[in-house]
Amino acid sequence: MLKNFARASKPDKTEVKQRTNEEQAKLAANQMRIKEARVPVMVIFEGWGSSGKGSVLAKVIKDMDPRFFQVSTLDAEPTEDERRHPFLWRYMVEIPEEGQFKFFDTCWMEEVTHEYVKGNLDRDTYDQRIDSINMCERQLVDNGYLVMKFFFHIGQKEQRRRLDALAANENTSWRVDDDDYWENDHYDDCLSTYDRYLRDTNRSSAPWYIIDARDRAWATLQVLEFLNTGIDVAIHNRGVSAPLRQNVFPLKKIPPLAKVALDKTITEEEYHTQLKALHTRLHELHNIIYRKRIPVVICYEGWDAAGKGGNIKRITSSLDPRGYVVHPIASPEPHEKARHYLWRFWKRLPRSGHIAIFDRTWYGRVMVERIEGFCSENDWQRAYNEMNEFEHELVDAGTVVIKFWVQIDSDTQLERFTDRQNTPEKQWKITEEDWRNREKWDQYEQAIDEMLRKTNTSFAPWHILESVDKHYARIKALRIVVEALEKACEE
Amino acid sequence: MLKNFARASKPDKTEVKQRTNEEQAKLAANQMRIKEARVPVMVIFEGWGSSGKGSVLAKVIKDMDPRFFQVSTLDAEPTEDERRHPFLWRYMVEIPEEGQFKFFDTCWMEEVTHEYVKGNLDRDTYDQRIDSINMCERQLVDNGYLVMKFFFHIGQKEQRRRLDALAANENTSWRVDDDDYWENDHYDDCLSTYDRYLRDTNRSSAPWYIIDARDRAWATLQVLEFLNTGIDVAIHNRGVSAPLRQNVFPLKKIPPLAKVALDKTITEEEYHTQLKALHTRLHELHNIIYRKRIPVVICYEGWDAAGKGGNIKRITSSLDPRGYVVHPIASPEPHEKARHYLWRFWKRLPRSGHIAIFDRTWYGRVMVERIEGFCSENDWQRAYNEMNEFEHELVDAGTVVIKFWVQIDSDTQLERFTDRQNTPEKQWKITEEDWRNREKWDQYEQAIDEMLRKTNTSFAPWHILESVDKHYARIKALRIVVEALEKACEE
Repeated sequence: MLKNFARASKPDKTEVKQRTNEEQAKLAANQMRIKEARVPVMVIFEGWGSSGKGSVLAKVIKDMDPRFFQVSTLDAEPTEDERRHPFLWRYMVEIPEEGQFKFFDTCWMEEVTHEYVKGNLDRDTYDQRIDSINMCERQLVDNGYLVMKFFFHIGQKEQRRRLDALAANENTSWRVDDDDYWENDHYDDCLSTYDRYLRDTNRSSAPWYIIDARDRAWATLQVLEFLNTGIDVAIHNRGVSAPLRQNVFPLKKIPPLAKVALDKTITEEEYHTQLKALHTRLHELHNIIYRKRIPVVICYEGWDAAGKGGNIKRITSSLDPRGYVVHPIASPEPHEKARHYLWRFWKRLPRSGHIAIFDRTWYGRVMVERIEGFCSENDWQRAYNEMNEFEHELVDAGTVVIKFWVQIDSDTQLERFTDRQNTPEKQWKITEEDWRNREKWDQYEQAIDEMLRKTNTSFAPWHILESVDKHYARIKALRIVVEALEKACEE
Repeated sequence: MLKNFARASKPDKTEVKQRTNEEQAKLAANQMRIKEARVPVMVIFEGWGSSGKGSVLAKVIKDMDPRFFQVSTLDAEPTEDERRHPFLWRYMVEIPEEGQFKFFDTCWMEEVTHEYVKGNLDRDTYDQRIDSINMCERQLVDNGYLVMKFFFHIGQKEQRRRLDALAANENTSWRVDDDDYWENDHYDDCLSTYDRYLRDTNRSSAPWYIIDARDRAWATLQVLEFLNTGIDVAIHNRGVSAPLRQNVFPLKKIPPLAKVALDKTITEEEYHTQLKALHTRLHELHNIIYRKRIPVVICYEGWDAAGKGGNIKRITSSLDPRGYVVHPIASPEPHEKARHYLWRFWKRLPRSGHIAIFDRTWYGRVMVERIEGFCSENDWQRAYNEMNEFEHELVDAGTVVIKFWVQIDSDTQLERFTDRQNTPEKQWKITEEDWRNREKWDQYEQAIDEMLRKTNTSFAPWHILESVDKHYARIKALRIVVEALEKACEE
């Protein structure tokens, strides 16, 4: 793409100026349309060092209301803490909320291409990154984001000239570093790498726009025109359904809930013997995953009153409290609802060596949000694949992902609800909403069966915990966690 | 305190065990009482290396519901990013929300005492840190927090024995580092430093509890007993009023709003000439503060339709968009309301070298929250001093704090409201709430006059922007910002 980039012919100075003024005014008006249409907008600037990304940005935003956009300046090098999370993490936590613009003065491209061209990234990892990025951009767009990507292009001589000019001036010399000169010295290698990256990520959900950046005024106008056109299209397309994607992940068979035998029990004595042994082992394993820096995500879903809380407690009680966190997941707050529905989970991912336990998870998308109509049918239909992709990212980054469905039957739930209602210390655990949800048991069961079937991937399979006998369910959960961690520690 | 610490006599093993069981059960019940009473609880563990803070913590939380507590493990050494914020910042962003416990496995004590004993902190800075910490703990407690502080004490020989044992075992040797041995080698110096720190920060809002940590089971029991007692007191005292504190900051005189002359104007020509000159200068200064790593906070308060938005725009339009952010402040979201009211502003503080512009600020506490009854009278009465202290922290950390009140008269507001109502592109700017607030003009004016008078400190004074002529107000704001930055760059 870059190598055979055909420059558009540049209009004369007066025309550039006039059209720029028009486009700036149009962008200011578009900003209000975007605010009203509640579209979140990601504008990504990538390109050669000294290609003028910063100064063009200043001109692009000239007429915008500064209260409704932000600028993100991520370093090409991730920090120590960022490296202890999945590759996409530091970008995903930065995505804008609906109605807002966020400009990224370099994003995931810079990190990947720089590591690759310097030989710090092997070809397989590079391909994996490309898959992650394409997945991520597509998911954002499918979930209502506008993602506009600009690559600022200048030639080798022009870049050299600019670097030397910056370096020669005492007020600007700090802006030039060895990396910039390295890029210039290896211009052809970099060109090939950038060219390959642009081709690899030039998808219709978020195509590339190459900006002829030899002249800043002209570059500004190009960005403005593409951006305004992109906004028009995005507002016009607001609310369209994204195509559902065929599942590409290996799925394991899983029986419907109706077939789960709930008569499994364990004796009191056996429970205490096994609990003790499993706790000792889990305690040791927690030390090892801490030292080996393995991140762990444990997901709990299940019927109300199925015994999630007590089950979680039996996992955590043998863990060092400095190495885990339990995230109780309620309905999203406004700033969470205003972003991609997985954002609040990205934000809560553990750093490597730590354990995050989710008491309810992203699967709310295909249960409560589906049944209560909090999202469109297209949204929850798409979500199975999106959640598989999300978990695949975690597993690719070395995360152990364990998913539990805590199962009871409807009669047992009624018994436990009634007990909660009648026991003063337990009353805080039961609400009107629990009773209302109970009435929709059949609807839920259908949704859950579909969820289990469609997200039972080989890399993050579901485990059913038969929890009429809570002791049985606890021992089973502990054993699954211990086995998963043992396997991860061996690898 | 430490030097003459009189150990309580240790009960025998059976008694320790029995009382511990009782206290653990009591803590579990107290956790639910805390949740219901919506008290936020900070439990701080400090103490000698290898004094068993981690393993005691694991026993203390044994019966607690892991969904309603968290553990914070901050390094003694702040990261590069943390160093570019005020000293208290990395702790303040971590405070728990109401109804929740947060355990700090070391907090501000460790950072300050370690830097001091190693000679990296001069006496004046040490004193400043002590003031910050005392202020912060008091503010938290006054705003409904329970802050419990435990110091784990062991002797030099005991510490040495533990370090050697850890180092000798291949599974635990990674837990011992040079710093631990350094502390042991300099036990007496450290003892003096810790002793001084405990005395300096032993205030009644958050007194110290020294834990005899020679025996872990016994240490656990001590912590549990103090903690449960502390919780009982906190729940009993829920809702008490904190004493109002006398203002200790130098205040500058400021006239009431009624005396502000609003007939100031500027000609169109003068406006454009000055705008251009000030923009050029501000652009240069932004580069300098970036290089000198000076943090800048600009606060905008003012009547609805006074022209805050347009004024802010004239500041930002000459700034590099990568070096500033505008925070529009609306009513707090649930997770914000559940914490100290300044928390959401601590979270938004700029890193050094950057500019944060607040479109409405923490002063909402003594305006809308006061008038609408969103907080108690004691809360907003106390807030003047608390906000002065907050700003003092920022200034102490080298921050330039600029506060604007954008002033118009009631007739002008009516005119602008009517114009907004009648102009389709401006209708998004006007809501029913604006009209309702307008009816309370006199109440607001009284509150604002009191606010200006009580928070017009010498280090963060208010600037009134006469904004009937918006051009005049913009030039005045720009000039004030330019002068403040020039002064900061000279220093």
